[in-house]
Amino acid sequence: MTTSELLSAIDGVGTDRRRGGFSRHAFDPAEMELREWFAEQAEARDLRVTTDRNANLWAWWGEPGDDAVVTGSHLDSVPGGGAFDGPLGVVSSLAAVDSLRASGFVPRRPLAVVVFAEEEGGRFGVPCLGSRLLAGTIDPDKARGLRDPDGVSFADAMRSAGMRADRVGRDEEALRRIGQFVELHVEQGRGLVDLERPVAVASSILAHGRWRFRFSGQGNHAGATLITDRRDPMLPASRLVLAARRAAAGVEGARATVGRLVPNPGGTNVIPSTVDLWLDARSPTDAATRSVVDELTERAREFAAEEGCEVVVTEESYGDTVHFQPALRDELSGLLEDAPLLPTGAGHDAGILAAEVPTAMLFVRNPTGVSHAPEEHAEFADCEAGAQALARVLEHLAR
Amino acid sequence: MTTSELLSAIDGVGTDRRRGGFSRHAFDPAEMELREWFAEQAEARDLRVTTDRNANLWAWWGEPGDDAVVTGSHLDSVPGGGAFDGPLGVVSSLAAVDSLRASGFVPRRPLAVVVFAEEEGGRFGVPCLGSRLLAGTIDPDKARGLRDPDGVSFADAMRSAGMRADRVGRDEEALRRIGQFVELHVEQGRGLVDLERPVAVASSILAHGRWRFRFSGQGNHAGATLITDRRDPMLPASRLVLAARRAAAGVEGARATVGRLVPNPGGTNVIPSTVDLWLDARSPTDAATRSVVDELTERAREFAAEEGCEVVVTEESYGDTVHFQPALRDELSGLLEDAPLLPTGAGHDAGILAAEVPTAMLFVRNPTGVSHAPEEHAEFADCEAGAQALARVLEHLAR
Repeated sequence: MTTSELLSAIDGVGTDRRRGGFSRHAFDPAEMELREWFAEQAEARDLRVTTDRNANLWAWWGEPGDDAVVTGSHLDSVPGGGAFDGPLGVVSSLAAVDSLRASGFVPRRPLAVVVFAEEEGGRFGVPCLGSRLLAGTIDPDKARGLRDPDGVSFADAMRSAGMRADRVGRDEEALRRIGQFVELHVEQGRGLVDLERPVAVASSILAHGRWRFRFSGQGNHAGATLITDRRDPMLPASRLVLAARRAAAGVEGARATVGRLVPNPGGTNVIPSTVDLWLDARSPTDAATRSVVDELTERAREFAAEEGCEVVVTEESYGDTVHFQPALRDELSGLLEDAPLLPTGAGHDAGILAAEVPTAMLFVRNPTGVSHAPEEHAEFADCEAGAQALARVLEHLAR
Repeated sequence: MTTSELLSAIDGVGTDRRRGGFSRHAFDPAEMELREWFAEQAEARDLRVTTDRNANLWAWWGEPGDDAVVTGSHLDSVPGGGAFDGPLGVVSSLAAVDSLRASGFVPRRPLAVVVFAEEEGGRFGVPCLGSRLLAGTIDPDKARGLRDPDGVSFADAMRSAGMRADRVGRDEEALRRIGQFVELHVEQGRGLVDLERPVAVASSILAHGRWRFRFSGQGNHAGATLITDRRDPMLPASRLVLAARRAAAGVEGARATVGRLVPNPGGTNVIPSTVDLWLDARSPTDAATRSVVDELTERAREFAAEEGCEVVVTEESYGDTVHFQPALRDELSGLLEDAPLLPTGAGHDAGILAAEVPTAMLFVRNPTGVSHAPEEHAEFADCEAGAQALARVLEHLAR
């Protein structure tokens, strides 16, 4: 099957009429439907489907075993996300298997397609949660205790989805089975558009993390409270949004974003008692990212104090700069002659696994350059070129 | 029964464990439970309970008729609100009836206790919706089409609650029946605390309204999008929060608040495509309120343009300054010798009805001065003093 046919099959799942695009979050009905769909697709190809201890799905071509060639991505989305971020890597993996099968290829090494859980952190706040748990870079108790906006814990959500939560954490057996990991992903910027190429090989991922700033003041009546009597946490929170822009603009290659901000209680005629604001900060180096966050933490304390408020800053996730394995990267570049090398500002499961096993990524051109939004796109021909490139890589590695 | 006993009876209804305080919104399970409780309380007192065309509840002492003495308030709350804003007026009305009954008083004019629907606008965005519909100051079609954050319309919510939505709008019969309206309410500031008195008579309500600012930019990936490529609506929205504070601080007695701000889609790793921000603006005069909002509208356009964004401003509700009827106000002041006259920055159903019928308000001391928050409070003795003052007023007017 082509990538288009596979993407069409899931086009109606998790449509978000309010936000636009798709909302598919870990273990919600949409993501569960996609998991089931993936299992059906894998079984229809005689791939053996298993779920690991960390809620990641695996589909094996041949007997599961050590030193396998692994590809795949994720099926969850950000709230109101695009159709390609995640699913393109999964369907390209299936299409590559089809293509290799059709050519009569028989892998000499085990080959697997993996679907990682909660890559976007859209429900429980920590991105790449499935791969982080697998690699042991997040404490299992911390992960079990993560809560979604409705207060449901990751552990309870796993149990509701029919999985055990007591066995999450570093999975030596699963890691040993990954000989190499190659993730295909839609590009989330305009690198390939500018270079006029359909497919790239990834060079690196920015150092990035998420920090929650909780500003606390005094909730009160919006009409009855004099301006001079206020301790309104919305004021320091707003100043921090502006400070984040300034801080990032001052550091080469840095980004700082506030995409989520929640005043509590959130009534129009109510001065909030607290405002939670999430900072997403990234830059080419660990030091630069830390300096941006340190500066903003200091600013946040000043802003809070000037309004008679307080602020508590919590690091929710962090990942250092990833340089994909040079040997594997060069092998892919040699194989795909037209594919340029591109860095990315986006985080990926491949970035988590890169600390454990030789890891590489392929990017497919996105004509809009937009991602995490309904405008995210990839043309059919480029998707097919991506699947073919992935098939060549898998064939080369697994033969 | 005492006000305390009555308040205790509803203490567990609509507790909001996430926000603190209570969340009781029009036609939600908590507000429906309170409506039922009120009807039971009224019936236990041989009051005749009816629901008018606009979802307001009425409990009549004696035959319903024209030129009645009407008291009451509301049972809904802001999200995470206090226990007194609304319910204190309702339970004081019932306690006043009990007290008058016990003294052997028989009203010569009809007397009614009213519970207005959606006073806070906490679900459908327009405060005093029940009294506005009754008085005809909001278009019935506009009201029917108002939507809650989940997209449910006011009309559908009414129908789900077992009421007809096709007959909402100005209700001449109900208005004719109101000879005078007196609403008792917890004070939402520190006026009575400073004066060391338990009860006040209201003089006026600030001109006030709600405006929605929708900033639109380009949703995108928080990591892959360069700072220089962004059109992030969170930036102009944050600047407007700060501008609102400055604008209000520059006008005597003015207040401007942003208590509700919703980035869409709201993911941590997503530059929002839109940010909705609600401005609550109030001041002693219509002209001053308008000038604050006009200035902020102009600023919002500048801020949006500077980020390559757009902004659309929508007035969601507005009410001019209310001066309660001098004759009735003076009558109450004469009757309650220790009660000072106090203005308020909070809106009330009494402010809507003041344009139609002679209307007055009583305030009960709030030791924290805080309202629309869990810290809102009134001491038992002050609540009882309020109910006794209300009983004296009703006796005086209905005899």
